Amino acid sequence: MTGRDSIPAPAVQRLSLYLRQLEALQFSGVGTVSSKQLGRSLGLSDAQVRKDLGYFGQFGHPGVGYRVDGLIQRVRGILGTDKVSNVVLVGAGNPGRALASFRGFSKKGFEVVGIFDSDSSLAGQPLAGLPTCVIQPMREMAVVVRTKSVRLGILAVPAPSAQTAAAEMVAAGLRGILNFAPISLQTDPSIAVSTVDLAVHLEQLSFQMTGSAG
Amino acid sequence: MTGRDSIPAPAVQRLSLYLRQLEALQFSGVGTVSSKQLGRSLGLSDAQVRKDLGYFGQFGHPGVGYRVDGLIQRVRGILGTDKVSNVVLVGAGNPGRALASFRGFSKKGFEVVGIFDSDSSLAGQPLAGLPTCVIQPMREMAVVVRTKSVRLGILAVPAPSAQTAAAEMVAAGLRGILNFAPISLQTDPSIAVSTVDLAVHLEQLSFQMTGSAG
Repeated sequence: MTGRDSIPAPAVQRLSLYLRQLEALQFSGVGTVSSKQLGRSLGLSDAQVRKDLGYFGQFGHPGVGYRVDGLIQRVRGILGTDKVSNVVLVGAGNPGRALASFRGFSKKGFEVVGIFDSDSSLAGQPLAGLPTCVIQPMREMAVVVRTKSVRLGILAVPAPSAQTAAAEMVAAGLRGILNFAPISLQTDPSIAVSTVDLAVHLEQLSFQMTGSAG
Repeated sequence: MTGRDSIPAPAVQRLSLYLRQLEALQFSGVGTVSSKQLGRSLGLSDAQVRKDLGYFGQFGHPGVGYRVDGLIQRVRGILGTDKVSNVVLVGAGNPGRALASFRGFSKKGFEVVGIFDSDSSLAGQPLAGLPTCVIQPMREMAVVVRTKSVRLGILAVPAPSAQTAAAEMVAAGLRGILNFAPISLQTDPSIAVSTVDLAVHLEQLSFQMTGSAG
């Protein structure tokens, strides 16, 4: 087991991919899995799988492999997704509405408990897919963050407004931002930021396809 | 300049991030930039920036730095996004509809020229945000791919249908898939696949925040 800060980020990212595989195996009723089977569909060697999991502890059983149910619980515990977390959504435009109706959040243990928008004329309106919330003005975020113990916010505003909105989220007490705006947010290093940038994905695909024949 | 296949994937990914920075500089009217400035907001050293760009050629001018306009053109050329590419969208449910209204695709040079869904009762219906297309049955994809020289498809169907839909996309002649279904697609290694998995982003943020105090 390695100190949390010294674990390479790619190993943490692969932990999510192992979890995806394990959940698929669990869904199919599979009880145990070897490191070779776990790595195969991800294009990873069994040694790589053992090394990655080894950063986080000892999980395997010689001659048996990994117990699927047990490993899922352990990995969720490591990632901190073994219990429900409250999150807020910032931006009630089209991207925010699409995200609000995305059922994957609650399936992964993230419950949207507040929606905020800088356009105060939207205040009080409901959002399809989120029957328990109405849109609130930005200045009410800090109270919701405090009373509902929210640490993570989803940022879905246009690029020109994103930096300002991110600063307001941090000022409201949030510790992590899932950023859908196509910019590199400037935040304190203590704030966890993950950016979903579709342009990056498109460009990477384009590069791979440009290299191939046809 | 290095052979395309031997360039590390992370360097190609950073190329997209450099392009994002350069586009922001161009928007602000900045004409030249140093490797130090280019790296700073991404948390990269100037040596790293020069090394990454060095895989693709010589771009800098001693004492001047990089010319922003010129480097943008060169990077787009390398990524293959300097000209418009036709793409198709598979899946006309909520995620597909949200993606169809995402203006970032055409801004990055990707034009949606077809929408396909396995539910043939949807055939002929328009999709908001895409006035030039109507939903078509899957069996018509191959003709559109051929006549409109499409190479890339966006896959936005639920996880249980994704593997089948991906196989149909490859059979129709597509060479790359931008996958929004939360599964690892099994495809021939010659097919470029990039998966946008929100659960992975959420878990990575959760891990980072679990490690911090509070």
